[in-house]
Amino acid sequence: MIRTIPAVEEMQKTAATLKQDGKTIGLVPTMGYFHEGHLSLMRRSVEDNDVTIVTLFVNPTQFGQNEDLDAYPRDFERDKNMAEEAGVDYIFRPANDDMYPGGYKTYVKVEDWSSLLCGASRPVHFRGVTTICCKLFNICRPDRAYFGLKDAQQYLVLQKMVRDLNMNLELVPMPIVREGDGLAMSSRNVYLTRAERGAAVLLSRSLAEAKEKISGGETDAESIKRGIRDRLNSSEHVKIDYVEAVSTETLDPVSDVAAGTLIAVAAYLGKARLIDNIII
Amino acid sequence: MIRTIPAVEEMQKTAATLKQDGKTIGLVPTMGYFHEGHLSLMRRSVEDNDVTIVTLFVNPTQFGQNEDLDAYPRDFERDKNMAEEAGVDYIFRPANDDMYPGGYKTYVKVEDWSSLLCGASRPVHFRGVTTICCKLFNICRPDRAYFGLKDAQQYLVLQKMVRDLNMNLELVPMPIVREGDGLAMSSRNVYLTRAERGAAVLLSRSLAEAKEKISGGETDAESIKRGIRDRLNSSEHVKIDYVEAVSTETLDPVSDVAAGTLIAVAAYLGKARLIDNIII
Repeated sequence: MIRTIPAVEEMQKTAATLKQDGKTIGLVPTMGYFHEGHLSLMRRSVEDNDVTIVTLFVNPTQFGQNEDLDAYPRDFERDKNMAEEAGVDYIFRPANDDMYPGGYKTYVKVEDWSSLLCGASRPVHFRGVTTICCKLFNICRPDRAYFGLKDAQQYLVLQKMVRDLNMNLELVPMPIVREGDGLAMSSRNVYLTRAERGAAVLLSRSLAEAKEKISGGETDAESIKRGIRDRLNSSEHVKIDYVEAVSTETLDPVSDVAAGTLIAVAAYLGKARLIDNIII
Repeated sequence: MIRTIPAVEEMQKTAATLKQDGKTIGLVPTMGYFHEGHLSLMRRSVEDNDVTIVTLFVNPTQFGQNEDLDAYPRDFERDKNMAEEAGVDYIFRPANDDMYPGGYKTYVKVEDWSSLLCGASRPVHFRGVTTICCKLFNICRPDRAYFGLKDAQQYLVLQKMVRDLNMNLELVPMPIVREGDGLAMSSRNVYLTRAERGAAVLLSRSLAEAKEKISGGETDAESIKRGIRDRLNSSEHVKIDYVEAVSTETLDPVSDVAAGTLIAVAAYLGKARLIDNIII
């Protein structure tokens, strides 16, 4: 039986007891509205650890003022059943003012990296992500935490935080889970109209084409990015936010694509802002 | 026998083993050059915990560009003997580039509070303090950490960080230890010339006089601060940085002094910047 924990103090006590009993804890931080991507993280955590905690919290500090905080899709009963079926032991589902009580003031920030790529159009986003994950790690005391690579920059920024702050856990990156036509799964895909859903496949398709060119020997980042941009611009439904090729070590742009290059795209399709990437 | 640990990884493993063995850990973070203030924290930690770790690290991120990072007094052999005598088990003494390796980017900041009082003239100071303490807490895994109340704002900012980020430890504030004439002990007192050392007593004396007025029924913060300023200005050696009366709950200035008011002063005496305070 899965157990729902609605309060920080109860979760913190439960985790402390689990650690005292020598249990390994796997953590899957989520904003809910689960899809196969989330479930793949949960299943892997259940395999790797004695106990799996899924956190379900639509974190206000990672949303900008004009973003989709209020619209973000929610369905707790469905999420709970899916998590239970995946073998999860606890869902931690705190209230906003339990996580951020009045007078809250403390933030964790990875400088520079939080302003690049998605951070350029979402200036508070990564500071919110690193802050909430720092809190969740302290509350839930995981040995391992699982993150999907659709949000590649999120994983890299969190990995940087964990190393810089000497946190006692391992981050486990998990492969992107895709729909049949290649669209990366995302809770935000529900925002898409039918026409936009049709065009959305261009993100994964343009990246797959880039991968093919690279396999064929192309290394010029500008040429590869131009190919992706041209492909995305072939639909009136796609408005590009960015197309970038950067090093996964430094997040600096590269001129030559090589092993360890992250090619990432973000685009608006109607109300949805979608992201996708490949790592060479 | 006290043991010196010079590397982050070794300290992290040692602390993990201590926790696995069910030991309670007390932490005394210091920049070294010990005086009776430091020793009072160590002795209390030795009383309270199975194991006491003293950290000795002159943390570059809490010093501004024109501050005394290079001049800060150091004497490791003396410090080690004093800590051993106080019953300390481990001295953690990492190198700069082990704590802040190349490409380091992550900072923890308590917004607003880091810019007030000492933060006004030392803009990066508290961000450096919260970041290094976050790192030391993760590396050393203390159940309790001990801080002297001479640095009252430091204690309040760290307490805010611990609560906001849901850290799993207790901060223990310890009373100011003073010289015979009342001067608060500080490693920076060695900077004082004989004339400045004579004038330095005005900090504690002006605060003691304020306390007496308050005991006598005075509550007007402006009048109390004016009394302190007049007293400090009576010496040509004292250049006031600030004299403030704030709430320990919010760090907001108060107009009426009451229980929970922090009256804090900072002043330059030659090369030394000294601080002192009373909490009503």
